[in-house]
Parts: sequence; C-alpha cells; structure tokens
Amino acid sequence: MFDQKSSSKIRNCILRLSRYKNALYRLEKIGFVKAFSDNIADAAGETASQVRKDFSLFGITGSKRGGYQIDELIQNLNAILGKNGNQKVVIVGIGRIGRALMEYEGFKKSGIEIVAGFDIDPEKADNQISVPVFHLHELQDFIIKNDIRIGIIAVPYIAARQAFDMLVAAGIKGILNFAPIHFKGPTGIVVTNVNLEVELENLIYFVNAEEKAKEL
Amino acid sequence: MFDQKSSSKIRNCILRLSRYKNALYRLEKIGFVKAFSDNIADAAGETASQVRKDFSLFGITGSKRGGYQIDELIQNLNAILGKNGNQKVVIVGIGRIGRALMEYEGFKKSGIEIVAGFDIDPEKADNQISVPVFHLHELQDFIIKNDIRIGIIAVPYIAARQAFDMLVAAGIKGILNFAPIHFKGPTGIVVTNVNLEVELENLIYFVNAEEKAKEL
Repeated sequence: MFDQKSSSKIRNCILRLSRYKNALYRLEKIGFVKAFSDNIADAAGETASQVRKDFSLFGITGSKRGGYQIDELIQNLNAILGKNGNQKVVIVGIGRIGRALMEYEGFKKSGIEIVAGFDIDPEKADNQISVPVFHLHELQDFIIKNDIRIGIIAVPYIAARQAFDMLVAAGIKGILNFAPIHFKGPTGIVVTNVNLEVELENLIYFVNAEEKAKEL
Repeated sequence: MFDQKSSSKIRNCILRLSRYKNALYRLEKIGFVKAFSDNIADAAGETASQVRKDFSLFGITGSKRGGYQIDELIQNLNAILGKNGNQKVVIVGIGRIGRALMEYEGFKKSGIEIVAGFDIDPEKADNQISVPVFHLHELQDFIIKNDIRIGIIAVPYIAARQAFDMLVAAGIKGILNFAPIHFKGPTGIVVTNVNLEVELENLIYFVNAEEKAKEL
C-alpha cells in the first residue's frame, strides 16, 4: 500500500504514462514509426520536458537524433503499467449509466471485458444487453469464483454504500464509482470516483471563474 | 484567461470547494446545523488543515468553539463558485452515453438542465427521451438563440473533432467531453475530458501498481 502523499504522485505519473501510451497508439495509427518527446507531448497535452522526465524515471531513453521507436515505447509502457491480457470487470447497477457502460465499445478495444451485471432487480435487463445480469445476492460468489479484481458501481446514491461494502467484502481490488458519493478505499483497495454531476458543476464553475478573471 | 500553471491551481481549489459544498449539503440533510473543519474534511475526503486553508484564502472564518454555520457557509461557497440559477446545457451525440446523460437525475438536482440533444441522425431518439433532439446542423443557431454556454460531447471518436469545432464556432464557453480524445480548449474555453476507458484502464494500472508495491 502507498501512503497518501506518494500514492497521489505515483497516480499522477501513471495517469500521464497512460495518456502517452494512448497518444502513441494514435500516432502509430496515422503512420508514425518514431516520435520525439515534442510529438508525444502535443498529442497527450503535456510539455516535452515532462514527457522526458517521466520516461527517464523508468529508464526509458530516446536518442537525440532519432527520438523514440514507437513500438518499443508502447511495449515498455505496457510493461510498466502492468497491463496483461483481458481484464474482467463486473458492474453493480443496471440503470441507464450501467447499461451504457455494458455496451461501451471503447472497453473491448482496451482489453476490458464486462463479464456480468448485478442488480436488486435483474428483470430490468432488457434483451438489448448482451452481458448476463444476475441478482445482487450472487455478487460475492461470482467475484470469488471468477477471480474478478475490478468492479464498477453504477447505482443511485441510496444504494451506493451497500454496493461498495459488498464489493469490498468479496475481495475486489479496484472500484470505479459512478454514484454521487466520494468513497475512499480501505487499505489495499483502489477507488476512482467519477461523479458526472460534479464534473459538470465544476465545468460551470471554471467557466464562471474565467469570465470573472476576464472582468478584472 | 488563466495561464496554465495558475489555472491548474485554481482548478484544484475550485474542485475542493465544490466537494466541501456537496459535503455540507449532505451534513445539512442529516440534521447538522454547524460543522467543524474536521467534519467537512471527513465528509469531503480532505484533511482539516486543507479545508481551513482553502476557506481562509477566500476570507471564510469559523469560530474555534462553534465551528462554521452550515447555511452561511453554503451561501458563501455558492457566491465564490458563482452558481446562479439554472444552467442550460446541450448534448451532441445521442448514443447510449448521451441518452444516459439526458435522463440523469443528478443534474436536475444541481440546477443543470439538458435542454436539447443534437445528432446527425436525430431519428435515433426514441420516445423514452423527454429532451428534444435536433439535427446537428441546427446546433449553432440553437446555441446562439438560447445563449447556451455549456456543451457535452458524447459522440464516437471519429465524430468528436467535428463536434468540438462546431461547439467552439458557436461560441460555447465550456465543454464536457466524453469522446476518447483529449481536447484542449482554445483561449477562453474550458474543457473537461472524461474518458471512461482511460479511467477504467488507469484503475487497473493502480491496482497492478499496488500489488507490485506489496511484493517489494
């Protein structure tokens, strides 16, 4: 387990490495074979010196003349990020957000597979959903039997705490939480909170702040 | 317009103030009238000293004995965050994510109103959607006529650049982007990128990193 301070630094670095990797895939797609730190920085929304600093932390070096070999670099980043094989993920809550996530095409592309959904009302699943849906009381068994490490919470506020506690009790290692409550992981469990309402509210605040700053 | 460095500090502070505000609403809901920085810190997932520091930056002070008066504090935070009245928002893209957002109940609670959706295929809208859906070529007129400042992008990767350019050309001030591409706002336009795929991937990386750290 990381302590809070170093954990946040490591997280920020991992976030950037992951952005570089996605940027490299995009550069590769449009025909690039080599890339300079400037190219990667532009594509990932960072500065070139940040890119070089992050890479050098992990012993990745390019040549001044030739830059980085993209395929090697992607391999290196994947090794650092520890992505290996398909990741099986379960979703708790099959409301609108849950269903949208179940059918989200981007996940498959990244080797992420939503293998099951769970709900107190599994009948809610319509036949448009290709992912099997089970009753919430089957959650723990399913997670243990299938060695699931990652769970998504997509239930309303009122049901979020129960969903969180059930996932933790079942031994899940990482939780992506879409419910409007800020969960903190107990020791050894990583939690990412995505609060759509707060994201949109904050955007409005930023816009207001920009406009106020302009008036000054 | 902020420069990049101070902009990121201001953003982080605004993000925390917004979390404090939501925490205060929750505390108020369960009957609290006053709150100490510890209570707010616990509910918002921050430290008490960070809470006091952020408040004092904006001249908000509590008494040592009595703490903060919650209703006053919320008023102060709303004044700082510049939230006033309903915010009208448009969505470009009415696929699964777009439709889930259109019907997302949390938005209304925060005074955010999704007033219209736009798509190259407006026929896709089923009659379950209560928000009117128009063809994409009506976007600019609608934004100008209705003085819309905030737009959401919920289109696939391939259509994202066009959607972004159209929103910018129409004079939008803030964009919440769900497409898997990292947009940076031109001067005076605030962009928040929410990449669900990257969020989930990063969570997997964090879990891997935690497990590696445990082995060391």
